[in-house]
Order: sequence, then structure tokens, then C-alpha cells
Amino acid sequence: MRMIEIILKKRNGGELSQEEINFFVKGYTSGEIPDYQASALLMSIYFQKMTDLETVYLTEAMMNSGDVIDLSTIKGIVADKHSTGGVGDKTTLVLAPMLASCGIPVAKMSGRGLGHTGGTIDKLESIKGFSADMKEEQFIKNVNEIKIAIAGQTGNLAPADKKMYALRDVTGTVDNISLIAGSIMSKKLAAGSQAILLDVKVGSGAFMKTEEDAFSLARLMVKIGTEMGRNTEAIITDMEQPLGRAVGNALEVKEAILTLNGKGPDDLYQLCITLGSELIMMTGNAETRQDAIDMLQNSVNDGRAFKKFAQFIQTQGGDINMVMDPELLPKAAYVLELKSAGTKYVKSIDALGIGNCALILGAGREKKDAAVDLSVGIYLNKKVGEKVFPDEIIATIHTNDLAKGEEALKKLSDSYCFSDEEVTKNRLIHGLVTKDGVKVY
Amino acid sequence: MRMIEIILKKRNGGELSQEEINFFVKGYTSGEIPDYQASALLMSIYFQKMTDLETVYLTEAMMNSGDVIDLSTIKGIVADKHSTGGVGDKTTLVLAPMLASCGIPVAKMSGRGLGHTGGTIDKLESIKGFSADMKEEQFIKNVNEIKIAIAGQTGNLAPADKKMYALRDVTGTVDNISLIAGSIMSKKLAAGSQAILLDVKVGSGAFMKTEEDAFSLARLMVKIGTEMGRNTEAIITDMEQPLGRAVGNALEVKEAILTLNGKGPDDLYQLCITLGSELIMMTGNAETRQDAIDMLQNSVNDGRAFKKFAQFIQTQGGDINMVMDPELLPKAAYVLELKSAGTKYVKSIDALGIGNCALILGAGREKKDAAVDLSVGIYLNKKVGEKVFPDEIIATIHTNDLAKGEEALKKLSDSYCFSDEEVTKNRLIHGLVTKDGVKVY
Repeated sequence: MRMIEIILKKRNGGELSQEEINFFVKGYTSGEIPDYQASALLMSIYFQKMTDLETVYLTEAMMNSGDVIDLSTIKGIVADKHSTGGVGDKTTLVLAPMLASCGIPVAKMSGRGLGHTGGTIDKLESIKGFSADMKEEQFIKNVNEIKIAIAGQTGNLAPADKKMYALRDVTGTVDNISLIAGSIMSKKLAAGSQAILLDVKVGSGAFMKTEEDAFSLARLMVKIGTEMGRNTEAIITDMEQPLGRAVGNALEVKEAILTLNGKGPDDLYQLCITLGSELIMMTGNAETRQDAIDMLQNSVNDGRAFKKFAQFIQTQGGDINMVMDPELLPKAAYVLELKSAGTKYVKSIDALGIGNCALILGAGREKKDAAVDLSVGIYLNKKVGEKVFPDEIIATIHTNDLAKGEEALKKLSDSYCFSDEEVTKNRLIHGLVTKDGVKVY
Repeated sequence: MRMIEIILKKRNGGELSQEEINFFVKGYTSGEIPDYQASALLMSIYFQKMTDLETVYLTEAMMNSGDVIDLSTIKGIVADKHSTGGVGDKTTLVLAPMLASCGIPVAKMSGRGLGHTGGTIDKLESIKGFSADMKEEQFIKNVNEIKIAIAGQTGNLAPADKKMYALRDVTGTVDNISLIAGSIMSKKLAAGSQAILLDVKVGSGAFMKTEEDAFSLARLMVKIGTEMGRNTEAIITDMEQPLGRAVGNALEVKEAILTLNGKGPDDLYQLCITLGSELIMMTGNAETRQDAIDMLQNSVNDGRAFKKFAQFIQTQGGDINMVMDPELLPKAAYVLELKSAGTKYVKSIDALGIGNCALILGAGREKKDAAVDLSVGIYLNKKVGEKVFPDEIIATIHTNDLAKGEEALKKLSDSYCFSDEEVTKNRLIHGLVTKDGVKVY
């Protein structure tokens, strides 16, 4: 088998066999196939697309390119939720302890990755002492004992994806649905959970800008997971504006803690209930949807969810005082306010614009291994549909650098759009994709 | 400017500016832009095509990536003929001395390249002592004194093309008309001739299989040459069957010598008259087409063309005895015959099949710098339209290795197709493309 023939086959619109896809993924991972041939194939895939079957083969090959975690020693069906990424998305911080407090084991591997803010682990590191570094045995022991562990990606998960993603990033071959689905699912599958719930974001702040694209990606990932023998579903959720009000690492941890205490923003809470109840149904932990919802709401109302969060943080070395009093979390030196000039309604908040504010402030990373400022970020006092009065604070910038703060404030202001009329909010949940089909809400 | 943006622009169907194309060609030639980004761009070009203007910019940038030969010290308008490559194409060996004997300066740079047989210089090296290695001053001196010099590509002509061609070859991005035209024309333009006549081959043995593709390539190359201020034309000629009867280096030299003496195959002679008269008209060396044809025919009939060939070979160190008696040229150890079983007409000869016979025998190279066996090849005693009688020789294989000879004989036999009915030959000349338009014959 020769790589040039595989390139030409795909370029000319052919369907690659499992053998050919394995040959490519193995050869590329080992370095026998050079980058320049891989990028030619990836660009051919961009133009000629992949069939579902080819995508399943690609994902399987990437999953098998490195370690595949065995979670079979964990009691119960292990649940995992994965978001395709949005601005202000701190769902895991809330949902994981909620589920764990209901007895559902959460064994989550999280990357740091690139983004407008840090990843889940960066956010948790706002809490002094918290560590996501642990051996696999410790990880499994924690899940068995307290039902929750969040670890940095250990070992060598899907190295083919890592190498291929880096190449796609610099060769204009990121935005192909099969390559996106394969990249996400190869890592999820290698991480070992039996039940995988995908939170596919849609809107201006998400990778998928249209409902059509989001549903297509969701359908394809559910298909891959199902073909690979995992219970997989996807919920399509709104990312036209940021989720919740806080964007930035410590700010988001604080908001998560508030939400676990029943005092968080409504959209974040509702999303956690929706995702959580779906996972409870998927793992067979409730008879009816209403039972599942009740389980989760009760876990918040009676304080068990928050207690689970505290236990989880303490188990992984975090300072419990910061959990009990989030005011102790890292704070930025300056707070700049965006104020309203008149009476109006918030019509839209460009999520990507807010994400870029966070990047300017140093909350996220554009390059791998870059440092993240945990204290900075944006707080959205007003969200879409809310009324603003003259001189009222619309949003605040939390910064350690006044020049960057001013730059971010300008961008923040540009990200808001107002209306004199009342505004209807986007619905939060756009639909559900299971192996049996698609429901659009 | 960033390469990723150039890739995305082309991928999304945009038209690249001259600045962007220069950035790519310069950066790729210098090594600042890596192969994997170049191959992604080339694959995007394959799918999205290039406009004529982009192709002109690409060609100009590749031409300027290395030395640009200055032939202004040569007296008269320097003519160059370039063939897109076919099987048995020894036109240069005949045409160059014909033109030179008519007083038209021929300053030809020739590569060795890859192919079923060697290139023009390999063929000429069948003549003992012949050398194409010379300094630029010697090259120009020879052209001024005897009107003809053929040199190996000296210096550093279009290194961007060299690098890009090697990449295209292994990334499935060879067959795009803009890249093909740019590759050919960048070298031709850098080689400095004022008048360029392109012999675009069409048919099963050529790179361009259909008339449509051949005319498109011809039109584009003429456009490029014209835009770059050179008098450029293209003639589209037949390559359904090999040109002439000889395929193989020394065999082709022998056939060229016969043709210069008026005893060669008709198609080769006619092609040289057609190409030569066009070049005489282009360089303003005759009033009418008939005058130009007469000049060339007279040069053969009165022996001047052959004498010019002998003078040229002697000037470049070749053994004059081999020119005077071509039987002294290198000969293969064995001659295998393909004989006819019945009475029939040759319907077709697959030129590519014959080319592959030559490759099997060792007449050409598949890899750069591979050795070429000058003595081996194929002689086609019967060509399309000719009648064959029982036990008559159809063609012969000249080989130094009996096993390879048998293999080639099998392929040779497969390459011939016969008919019981009389067969009409393909016309030799399919059309002419000038800056003023296209003539289809």
C-alpha cells in the first residue's frame, strides 16, 4: 500500500477502506508518512468529505493509536459529558458533583487545550492546592470512593489525533465534520466511559455556527460512539451568548459554587439539569425523566451537590476555605465597568467577542503551554433580554493590566447590541440526538 | 502575511494576489514555508483551480526564484521549441540543426528529467564524447558562431519549480493545468529565448489525453508567455502512437540522422517541418509560410541540415564517425522480434505501453539520477495504418537482458491492436494556438 495512492483515491472522490485508513493513521503516528502527504490527504478529505463508515474507521484508528483506558474496575456505569466548547462554559464544575452526589460515577479526563479561558482543570486550579495529576489507580480509587475524579489527560491518549490536530491547525483543514467528530470521539472513546453525552454548542460563540452544522456533527458523533459500542447521545445547546454571567477561570469557579448552592444563573442551572437528567436516564439510574430531574434538583436543594464538590476539591488537594468562601479565590487588581447611557434591552451579546476579551486579558491561551491568568475575566451583569437603565452597570472587566483592560472594555462594548423593544431570548436547548434519531426542540 | 491565510483563501475559492503568490513561492523556495503547508495549498489549487492571472503570477514568481538567463548577446531572435513529452519524440535532434542551418539561432537548455527514455541530452550522449556541460559564455559563443548549442540546465533555473514538482509528485497534485503550465513555462522563460514554440502532445501516450485538455494547456501557456513579453505559440500534435519508429536513446539518434538525410519516418519529418516553419515565421525569417517550408526542406535536401548536425556534435566533443556511420552507435546485445501471425492492418499502438517497454528495458529513468542504458529500445517496423503480412516483423526489442527483453516483448505485443479492415491514421497536427486565438485542424 502506498500513501500517494490513498491520497489520489480520496482526491478523486473514492471511499477509503478500513485497511487504507489504518495504514495512514499508523504510518502518520509513527512518522513514516510525512506531514506533507498527511496534509494533502486532509485537504482532499476537506473537499471530498468522508462517509460515516470512513469516519468510524478513522476514529477507531485514532483511538487505537495510543492508550485506551480501562474503567471496568469502577463500580456502576461511568458517565462522561463532553462539550464542543463555548464561552463561559463551566458546566462540568457544576454537573460532575451533582451527578456524583446522586451516586453516578464521574471519571473525567480533561485536557488543558487552547481557548478563550483555560480548560476545566485550569479553572479548578484557581483553588489553591488543587491538583489533577494522579496515577490511574488513584483516579479509579477516588471514583469508587467518592464517585468523582477529574484528572489531567494521563498517558498517551489518541496521539494520532494530537499530531493530526496540530497539522490541521496550520494547513487549513480544521473545519471538516468528519475530522472534527473523529478528533473529539477518538479521545472520548480512549478515555473509557461507557455513557457519553455530548453537549454540542451552536451559535456565534461556538465552532458550529448553524443548527444544521451542529445537528450534523451531533448525529455523526452519536453514530461513531454507537458503532464503537458506547451508549452515546448528544444535546444541542445555545451558544449565541456566553453561558452564565462569568467568563474567566476563578470567576467561573465562583459562579459554579453559587450554582451548586442554588444561586447561580438560570441558564447554567437549567443546562446542568438537562444534561444531568439525560445522563441519569442513559446510565439507567432513574425510571422516568421527572425522577431524574428531581434527583438532581434535590441534590442542589438539600446541599448534597455542593458538599460533594467540597469533598472532591479536598480529595484532590484543594483549599476548602476557598470553596466555603469564594471571595478568597484569586482576584484581579482592577475592575472596569461598562455602563449604560440609556434605557434599553440587551438584544445580543457576541459570545466570540466576549471570548476575545478574555483572551486579551490573559484568561486563556492561544499557544500550547502558555500561562493562564486565573484571576481575570468578564462578568456580564446584563444578559440577552434583560432591561438596562441609565448609568446601570452592563458588565465588568477584571484585569491586572489597565491597558489591556481598556482594550477589552472597548471590545466588550462592541460585543453588546441593544434594542428599544423587548427582546425574546434564544431557547437554551435546541435538540437531542440519540442512536434512534433526532429531536428538534 | 501568513501562509495559513493564503491556504484558506484559496481553499475557499478566492483569487490570490500577486503579493500572496510571491510570498508563497519565495517562502517555499527558501524553506521558510514548510512542505506540509505547500502541499495543502497545492491540493486547494487542485480543487479550486487558478485563474489565468494567478497562473501568470505563479509562473513569474517561479521564474524569478533562481537565475534568469540573459541571451541578449546572441545575434538574431533566439528560438526555442519545447515538447510536453511523448514517446519516441526526438524532434529536437532534427529540428534544431535544420533551423540552425537556416541561420536561426538555437540556444537550447535541456533537462535530463524522468521519462520512458532519456531526455535530449541523454540521447545525444549516445554519441561518444558528446558533452552538454558548458559555461554560459561558451554556450553563447557556440550559438553566435555555429547557430546551435544544447546545454544541460546550467545554474539554478526555477528552483521553486524543482522543489514544487518533487512535492506535487508525492502529494497527488500533479494534474492541475495551472501547475503544469507554470512548471513548464517558468523554466522556459528563465532559459531566456524570445520566441517559444510549444509542442503540446495529445493522446494516449501524452500527459494530455484529450484534445480539450491539450488545447486548454496550450492556450494557458501561450497566455503566460505572451503576458511575460515573449512571442509564444503552441502546436497541438498527435501522440496516440509513438513518433517515428525508434524508441530508445541511440536508436532515436540513428533515426534523427536518417531524417536529417531525408530518409526518416514521414511523421517525424512532417512534424519538424511544421514546427520549424512556425518558428521561422515567429522569428521573422521568412515572408510566407511556403518560403519557410521551402527553407527547411532545402536544408535537408541539399545536406546543410545534416552538416549542421555534424558540426554541432563535433563542437560539443562528439565522435564525428558515429554521426557519419550511425551503425557505430551503441547497440544492444540481443534483438527480439515480434512477428505477425496473419494478414492485417495495424489499428493502434498504445504509446504509453511502448514507453513502458522502454522503461523495462532500461532506456529511461523512474528516479532522478538513475542510469540510462543508451543502447536499448524498441523499433516499430509497422505503424498505424500499415499492412502486415504473415510472418512479417511488426517490431523489434533491443535489449541487453533476455529476461527483461521477454517481458518487454509481451508488453509490446499487448500494445499493438490490429484490424482486418483498412485503418485511417490520426492526423498529426491537431491545431495551433497563438495569442490571437485558436485554430483547430
